[in-house]
Amino acid sequence: MLDRRQFPEREVWQRCSNYEQVASAIEDMVIQGAGSVAFAACFGLALAAGCYSSRSHAEFENKLFKAAGRLKSTRPTGEYLIPLVDKMLQIAIEAHAEGTDPVQAVVFNTEKLMAQDDELTRKCGMYASHLIADGDGILTHCYPGGALLYMLDYVKQQGKQVRVYCSETRPYLQGARLTAASVHRLGVPVTIVTDNMGAFLMAQGKIHKFVTACDRITMDGHIANKVGTYQYAICANLHRIPFIVLGYDGPQTNTLTAGDIEIEERDPEEVLYCRGVRTGAPGVKGYYPAFDITPPTLIGAIVTDRGVFSPLEIGRVYADRFSREISC
Amino acid sequence: MLDRRQFPEREVWQRCSNYEQVASAIEDMVIQGAGSVAFAACFGLALAAGCYSSRSHAEFENKLFKAAGRLKSTRPTGEYLIPLVDKMLQIAIEAHAEGTDPVQAVVFNTEKLMAQDDELTRKCGMYASHLIADGDGILTHCYPGGALLYMLDYVKQQGKQVRVYCSETRPYLQGARLTAASVHRLGVPVTIVTDNMGAFLMAQGKIHKFVTACDRITMDGHIANKVGTYQYAICANLHRIPFIVLGYDGPQTNTLTAGDIEIEERDPEEVLYCRGVRTGAPGVKGYYPAFDITPPTLIGAIVTDRGVFSPLEIGRVYADRFSREISC
Repeated sequence: MLDRRQFPEREVWQRCSNYEQVASAIEDMVIQGAGSVAFAACFGLALAAGCYSSRSHAEFENKLFKAAGRLKSTRPTGEYLIPLVDKMLQIAIEAHAEGTDPVQAVVFNTEKLMAQDDELTRKCGMYASHLIADGDGILTHCYPGGALLYMLDYVKQQGKQVRVYCSETRPYLQGARLTAASVHRLGVPVTIVTDNMGAFLMAQGKIHKFVTACDRITMDGHIANKVGTYQYAICANLHRIPFIVLGYDGPQTNTLTAGDIEIEERDPEEVLYCRGVRTGAPGVKGYYPAFDITPPTLIGAIVTDRGVFSPLEIGRVYADRFSREISC
Repeated sequence: MLDRRQFPEREVWQRCSNYEQVASAIEDMVIQGAGSVAFAACFGLALAAGCYSSRSHAEFENKLFKAAGRLKSTRPTGEYLIPLVDKMLQIAIEAHAEGTDPVQAVVFNTEKLMAQDDELTRKCGMYASHLIADGDGILTHCYPGGALLYMLDYVKQQGKQVRVYCSETRPYLQGARLTAASVHRLGVPVTIVTDNMGAFLMAQGKIHKFVTACDRITMDGHIANKVGTYQYAICANLHRIPFIVLGYDGPQTNTLTAGDIEIEERDPEEVLYCRGVRTGAPGVKGYYPAFDITPPTLIGAIVTDRGVFSPLEIGRVYADRFSREISC
């Protein structure tokens, strides 16, 4: 797997040959992001299945439970990690019981889920691309993932020229490191600014759309995303610049409103450092809320794999999906 | 002089024994800030005067002109540097011609100006302190200088408890390094946040006043200050939080409106580094506007050494001062 801690300065690939190595790599932040972590853990389980497939079924089941437990313990708050590993555990055990190859079963099903995830991301980017005009300056914040890249790729195919501005996204610098590198590789002009420059870019007329992903969407149209999103959304609103949210697979139907989202506070010390170098004055405290919440009044559109939605209608649309899913 | 490049990690004092050492120290950013640089250059001129005071008057004048030229060339855009050095040059030459000590004359007059400057700063802080309430959370941006510290000192004397939040102020981190250290030494609780967290602090109810200094005030009530000020001013306005500007000696009467202020663009590479460590993705560009402009509609009060003013009246008040100064 690509070591994201070193990317983009160095492109180092780490090879894992057993599940313990995969688990350690996840814990050590070699791989990051809820989806990537969950898929990596599934492949870790495939490695375990390969290692123990010649054992008796009882022993195989026992060993695989242990491996799944280890992989799930790496990042316990991940949204996809635990259900996906549990699903693959079940698939591996069933395959072994039926005398078919459990490794192949886990790899096949993980790859199927990855392809579904990629297709969902592509559709989200495709719908979003129609909201971008020729000549637009696009401000983004943090790392909006594959949907932004698909969006830009479609924008290019549609013959539209755009420029992307990435806020650097302190303290982890996801914008400066990941987003800027990815957009640059796509061949789209990209400029990094620090997190205090967004509003001035808007006042200068350089920004025409503000586009981010989000970590959570509520049924009443709020979004939670990397801290700083709310600040830019306020400034974009004042400058009459639409805020477009790449919403991937939409809201979770049990997240009704902003009060249902817990804002994670990370280690305050991290605010006092930048890439390992001390930036804060000695003896002084830091404060690190990792996310903030933007209300629907500041959001122009939430784009998902199903299309472009007003934040005011997203709850109705997905409540409907929820009831249909429940019924099948 | 205190080496500001190393402060606050290390408190290193650099001793200068001739004017060339002072000039180099200014060029190398050992000392920073328009006022500090100008006063340091004046003391550099005093060193030159001491070195050449036993020469003939023609030779003294010649040598001192050269020294003044060297000191003025260090930071040619400084607002105070050139007029102050020229004034002290004249004082030194007159003293030498009259047979009195030119060193004493320069030191006496520089110290007098420094005391005037300090008194002006103190008054600005004193007037501002009355706008701060007990229990206030104060967000500040960049380094608002001595007026903020005087303000906080008066606030303490008035028996009011406050907490200061410093945005770190990328890319140079003046907030994280200088402001946080200074406020901490004053014994006022201080917390550093990154530049993307201000609006979320406001939404959480942690901020009651937004206080900055400014680099320029226009006669029609705009201010230019470190980039990011405008962004916070917009967010403060949305959250009904007053923006208080520490305006020191007020507007320059020849700066009529925002169009009269040129926004300095610094080396874009600086945005891609933090304390010497690369932060931006390879091959990607940066953009570094050093200042932004906040309109009077977002400013609650501009405080100067003469009192607290609405941005809408500052022009009238200072136009009046200007005409009186011209007439005397």
